Amino acid sequence: MADSWVNLAESLGADLHLELTGPGSRRAVLMRALRDAVRSGRLAPGTKLPPYRSLAADLRIARNTVADAYAELVAEGWLTARQGSGTRVAQKASPPPGRGKAAPVAPVRGQRTPARRPRPTYDLVQGQPDPSAFPRGAWLASARRALTVAPHDAFGPGDPRGRAELREALAEYLARVRGVRTTPARIVVCSGAAHALRLLAAVAGGRSRLWAVESYGLPFHRGLLAGAGVPTVPLTVDEHGARTAELETPRKIGVVLLTPAHQFPTGGPLHPERRAAVVDWARSTGALVLEDDYDGEFRYDRQPVGAVQSLDPDRVVLMGSVSKSLSPTLRIGWMVLPEQLVDDIVTAKGEREQWSSATEQLTLADFIASGAYDRHVRKMRQRHRRRRDQLTAVLAERAPQVRVTGIAAGLHAVLRLPPGTERAVVKAAAWQGLAVEGLADYRHPDFPADGRDGLVVGYATPPEHTYGGALDALCRSLP
Amino acid sequence: MADSWVNLAESLGADLHLELTGPGSRRAVLMRALRDAVRSGRLAPGTKLPPYRSLAADLRIARNTVADAYAELVAEGWLTARQGSGTRVAQKASPPPGRGKAAPVAPVRGQRTPARRPRPTYDLVQGQPDPSAFPRGAWLASARRALTVAPHDAFGPGDPRGRAELREALAEYLARVRGVRTTPARIVVCSGAAHALRLLAAVAGGRSRLWAVESYGLPFHRGLLAGAGVPTVPLTVDEHGARTAELETPRKIGVVLLTPAHQFPTGGPLHPERRAAVVDWARSTGALVLEDDYDGEFRYDRQPVGAVQSLDPDRVVLMGSVSKSLSPTLRIGWMVLPEQLVDDIVTAKGEREQWSSATEQLTLADFIASGAYDRHVRKMRQRHRRRRDQLTAVLAERAPQVRVTGIAAGLHAVLRLPPGTERAVVKAAAWQGLAVEGLADYRHPDFPADGRDGLVVGYATPPEHTYGGALDALCRSLP
Repeated sequence: MADSWVNLAESLGADLHLELTGPGSRRAVLMRALRDAVRSGRLAPGTKLPPYRSLAADLRIARNTVADAYAELVAEGWLTARQGSGTRVAQKASPPPGRGKAAPVAPVRGQRTPARRPRPTYDLVQGQPDPSAFPRGAWLASARRALTVAPHDAFGPGDPRGRAELREALAEYLARVRGVRTTPARIVVCSGAAHALRLLAAVAGGRSRLWAVESYGLPFHRGLLAGAGVPTVPLTVDEHGARTAELETPRKIGVVLLTPAHQFPTGGPLHPERRAAVVDWARSTGALVLEDDYDGEFRYDRQPVGAVQSLDPDRVVLMGSVSKSLSPTLRIGWMVLPEQLVDDIVTAKGEREQWSSATEQLTLADFIASGAYDRHVRKMRQRHRRRRDQLTAVLAERAPQVRVTGIAAGLHAVLRLPPGTERAVVKAAAWQGLAVEGLADYRHPDFPADGRDGLVVGYATPPEHTYGGALDALCRSLP
Repeated sequence: MADSWVNLAESLGADLHLELTGPGSRRAVLMRALRDAVRSGRLAPGTKLPPYRSLAADLRIARNTVADAYAELVAEGWLTARQGSGTRVAQKASPPPGRGKAAPVAPVRGQRTPARRPRPTYDLVQGQPDPSAFPRGAWLASARRALTVAPHDAFGPGDPRGRAELREALAEYLARVRGVRTTPARIVVCSGAAHALRLLAAVAGGRSRLWAVESYGLPFHRGLLAGAGVPTVPLTVDEHGARTAELETPRKIGVVLLTPAHQFPTGGPLHPERRAAVVDWARSTGALVLEDDYDGEFRYDRQPVGAVQSLDPDRVVLMGSVSKSLSPTLRIGWMVLPEQLVDDIVTAKGEREQWSSATEQLTLADFIASGAYDRHVRKMRQRHRRRRDQLTAVLAERAPQVRVTGIAAGLHAVLRLPPGTERAVVKAAAWQGLAVEGLADYRHPDFPADGRDGLVVGYATPPEHTYGGALDALCRSLP
């Protein structure tokens, strides 16, 4: 969608610009702009939005597009629509006493920041583990051990690659658990997968401005690449993962971003033949494979699928983090790099601003090396599997017509829906007080709608005591 | 200096590009490019550099410029020069056993990363507290208390403004200790002063592309602003701080960056009349004042000078961090913002990638609220004062001709030198195994050389047991 601005000052009596820019359909772009305006506080809670007809005229886009965007944002809880009162920005939750003025803060899809937004009663949006499962005691024990034995230089200026203790612990752990072939010298610590992707876009983006991504994936990652000036083309995703044969195109693709362990979000592992094929393709074309190993540890029905990285450590970058396994608030991730990329990544990482806290890195190093990380992952795997089994059992009983897919691994499942029903179901869920996302939200904007309707159900998200209620609300929303 | 590249492949037998770009004199730009090449490992330890005549010819710059750059880098420990052997990249220190391959990592001025570079015996480069002074026990006690009482949402997605607990603790602390007028809602946590400056450049840069900075200041900050597309003009610094009258120019200045508590690096506090004047100027022109309160807590001879922010919280942004008071490795800083900037800064801060670890934020909140931070600052203030007194006593005895300035506060002093001697003294210090910086390194490139020769002596940097030796080496280097 071409960049365009609209000034809502007249209709709102306030100075508000909507910047309609970035990737995606018109509806998606408008929704993002409205979310941004609410999140930043420019559209205050209770503000009445212009009627969709006026906004459509101002923006010179179809009325249905605006009406759809309004309806979706109502479903997501950003806006409210009441008979006779028009469409308004939803009221924020009251700030807790003594906490100062609360600015409206609301979720970003794929990397959510729901503090203080009007929360739905139940949350099955994928993307984060239940925060109440954080292993406080074990983490503190690691902090105590790590800070007690740390050399003084731990509190000095630091190393842009990350603490050596952590890189050593990661090298050992990733080799053992994920079959990764590396040395500590080829690991660079970063703040998470998004940081890794941004650094890689800066370094490897220059090789080729064209990257391939999966036709279904995190919009946040695509947006990040678009922001870095890296155009992406979608690879069709089927039950064996991404169709790697589509990499053989006349257009030169320099980098491919994949989720081989558990395709995100549709859920299958990349087929062994395709694993080999993508590495062969990278070798023969000089391209680079980025392996987003976002939930490689959470496999339930058999041994984890090893990392594609092990097939060729000079052609594959493995990216991981503790965001799914421990907590996204720790802001620690890693890249396992081909040797020739290490220096460029360190240079791109730049000044200390972008580094992770050394004390947290030391704590995580101890947490991994002491075996506490293994124990925590095992415990969470059991809990996730129990939740997954509960989900499938409830659905088998109450919605047997719904097929549940992508459940061999991970923290979410995909519920396949009859074509054309997805948006209605998401809205119905919102009426049930349930936040959940549709598969369409993850589709690459250049990938044709393929009639694949579905819900992405993050079964690891809610705290234990609300999980049953969330499943009940889910069943009541299904067709 | 215009962008230009030189390929040293022929002279080095390896593929090396020097990118001569960015702000500063030709000498400064060349030095930065060489430092970057060494730091990134592209110029390996022991690599012989081309003779300065050849490099000057390749780069089409004056021979003296290259010769000077080589000499300075020898003085700083990046290069070595031996009769008959030419100029080479200095050998790195051997990596500790079992730590994998150590890439050469060397200091960035102003924000240094000296892990594993060939370290001089003594280090009086300003910029960081002695890492052995980190209060491990008290920090761990705070971590234990904080993680024990933290609500579950501490391990969830988080708040882009930073944890409320920390913003509350900071609001109380900054009001009490620095006279800052704020509420927690106007504080945004970031990863340090550089992060704050980058966010402010993104948000306030748009108001006016012209910022005023002090004629002496951190090159790193100027470089960061240049990188963000913000041109800077220098304000003359004298014994009363920056000459705020120079803000009244025909060119419209939209933002001024100052170090009012203790001008960095020359050392005086901003005169009370100028404090009032800069706020008046900001009010009358609609401009913004950025107050870099980098060492506001370390004042020795009388009560700390309150923050300029207190004169007008709607016109002044205060930036601070724990980098000088606790450790730069924690990566926690803050901005106290005018209310109307908060939302824009939160938006500019963007996705979680840029946030600080929530567990560290909670730990710091407890550390401040429990009084441990006050105790630590008091202890460090005593230690810094003792070191400062030792410095002045030693100099009074052994180099009475050297005037010591800027010592009422902070973690460094400026030793004034006879005009024209500064670079020779820095080199002499290097021969004594002492790393120390000259005042010229901090001068704004557009500010005329004013014959102010001096050394910037970071007396808080060395560990206790080497401080005496460092002072001895310093005295032996002085003219």
